[in-house]
Amino acid sequence: MPSLSRLSAVTLSAIVGGAYYLRSEKSLFSSEKDAVRSMSLLNTAECAVSSISLPFPDIHPSPRTKWDGNWDNREPKYMVDPIEYEEADPIRRQNMLEEVTPTSKRNIILIRHGQYFMDRNHKNYLSLTPLGQEQAKCVGQRLANSGLKFDKVIMSTMTRAEETAKLILNELPPTTVESDSLLEEGAPYPPEPPSKHWRPTQKGSRIEAAFRKYIHRASWKQKNDSWELIVCHGNVIRYFVCRALQFPPEGWLRMSVGHSSITWLIIYPDGFVSVRSLGDIGHLPNGKVSF
Amino acid sequence: MPSLSRLSAVTLSAIVGGAYYLRSEKSLFSSEKDAVRSMSLLNTAECAVSSISLPFPDIHPSPRTKWDGNWDNREPKYMVDPIEYEEADPIRRQNMLEEVTPTSKRNIILIRHGQYFMDRNHKNYLSLTPLGQEQAKCVGQRLANSGLKFDKVIMSTMTRAEETAKLILNELPPTTVESDSLLEEGAPYPPEPPSKHWRPTQKGSRIEAAFRKYIHRASWKQKNDSWELIVCHGNVIRYFVCRALQFPPEGWLRMSVGHSSITWLIIYPDGFVSVRSLGDIGHLPNGKVSF
Repeated sequence: MPSLSRLSAVTLSAIVGGAYYLRSEKSLFSSEKDAVRSMSLLNTAECAVSSISLPFPDIHPSPRTKWDGNWDNREPKYMVDPIEYEEADPIRRQNMLEEVTPTSKRNIILIRHGQYFMDRNHKNYLSLTPLGQEQAKCVGQRLANSGLKFDKVIMSTMTRAEETAKLILNELPPTTVESDSLLEEGAPYPPEPPSKHWRPTQKGSRIEAAFRKYIHRASWKQKNDSWELIVCHGNVIRYFVCRALQFPPEGWLRMSVGHSSITWLIIYPDGFVSVRSLGDIGHLPNGKVSF
Repeated sequence: MPSLSRLSAVTLSAIVGGAYYLRSEKSLFSSEKDAVRSMSLLNTAECAVSSISLPFPDIHPSPRTKWDGNWDNREPKYMVDPIEYEEADPIRRQNMLEEVTPTSKRNIILIRHGQYFMDRNHKNYLSLTPLGQEQAKCVGQRLANSGLKFDKVIMSTMTRAEETAKLILNELPPTTVESDSLLEEGAPYPPEPPSKHWRPTQKGSRIEAAFRKYIHRASWKQKNDSWELIVCHGNVIRYFVCRALQFPPEGWLRMSVGHSSITWLIIYPDGFVSVRSLGDIGHLPNGKVSF
């Protein structure tokens, strides 16, 4: 059975640079010859023939937005008492900041529920289908076999999430279990490109509240790396990923995660976030995958 | 063994709307009471206690950027002869456009190579480790058991990618195989947040060229949905995903994909792109995962 890895260092070491914009690169080249070589590389791309006479779209003029280091409002300087900090001397200030600086990582495993009955006339409407039950059991077995000890399992209060969570919990050693209606399904944000199915409701505020409640760096009080399982919904997971990675929230519909899939976020003590997998369905046998 | 699904319709049907910005939502509420209810939902989020006296960061003031429907320069109107189009009557124009409108989907499966020897003094420097060979075989078996018929397998010309591709090909029925040095590893774009390991080189242009060569909607000449396998590298995969989803390219380091992982992109005939999985490692047995 497959497993998740505890290896979690971001592999930054192999990075040696690069900027794909010819005009911004030109100043970085050591010689004119390098610039010409780079241009010939660009020309090897198979572009549409008729595009030659048309302007090429200027997709990414420059890095669009800086990483917001205080995205979760938990940078150490926001965690001290501001009045006390203002009155402190430089050494005391440094101590105050060090005291509230997180040291642990949070691993957040987001699980989408299994397939469920969507036909209003079905007697088990909104409950898991037999396939959905099987999918939930498969992901539970995968998580159990990974050997990970989950500090907490949190589930949405919708039937399909509760049923999925219970089937997962059957496979895991006992742990803390919570339910939260903030995690229920909804439409989190006006999607771009627009979808004709989208109607404005206030559910986006509630899903943003769920994001702020669950997705943030560890407290300075947390002494060990943690593993938490959140059993919820496709839109919630996709929105969480966009927000956590500081990708535009309107892009959530550009991702699609399968039933009982695993999405793994790591939040580092300094607030950096990394997604290790999105919509991993490798635990599902052939023919048991659904979206 | 696990499988990929041929199900590929984007599940737009369950979307009923939502906008999380209170100020933009206010005008959408049917009554003042709804606005108050929404505010109380926001308050249930556990915010840092000391943040009350500090301004909350304004992370997403509005949808940041529109989806660029012509991101790959292959919208039908860019595929016709512009002079002939200019001179045609309205009916002929419509026929010209219909003729070049794609009808098939492209499924692109990006595989990261297996673990390899990174120690310059090792006799097998840059070749797959025994674990890396095992990882490659596992992903090959998963792809074979999925029953998918790959139209083409393309590999980067770096040793670790070639070795991985060959081990995968051992498991698959015969198909068209190509090698391309455009797919070699490199640093695609200045990352944000910045990495101290990053140095500017011209590799970004080459990786952007690879993106433009391989990631685009199907030609109107393509009559069936296609499945292509690209065996390449972590940075290349992460950059491709950012660019294909129109997420900021500087965000590629916020993702991390494991050795021999599967990343599945679907490009629809109208140019919309969906990622179905990122860094799926479900085919790796317990203890065989590495990054």
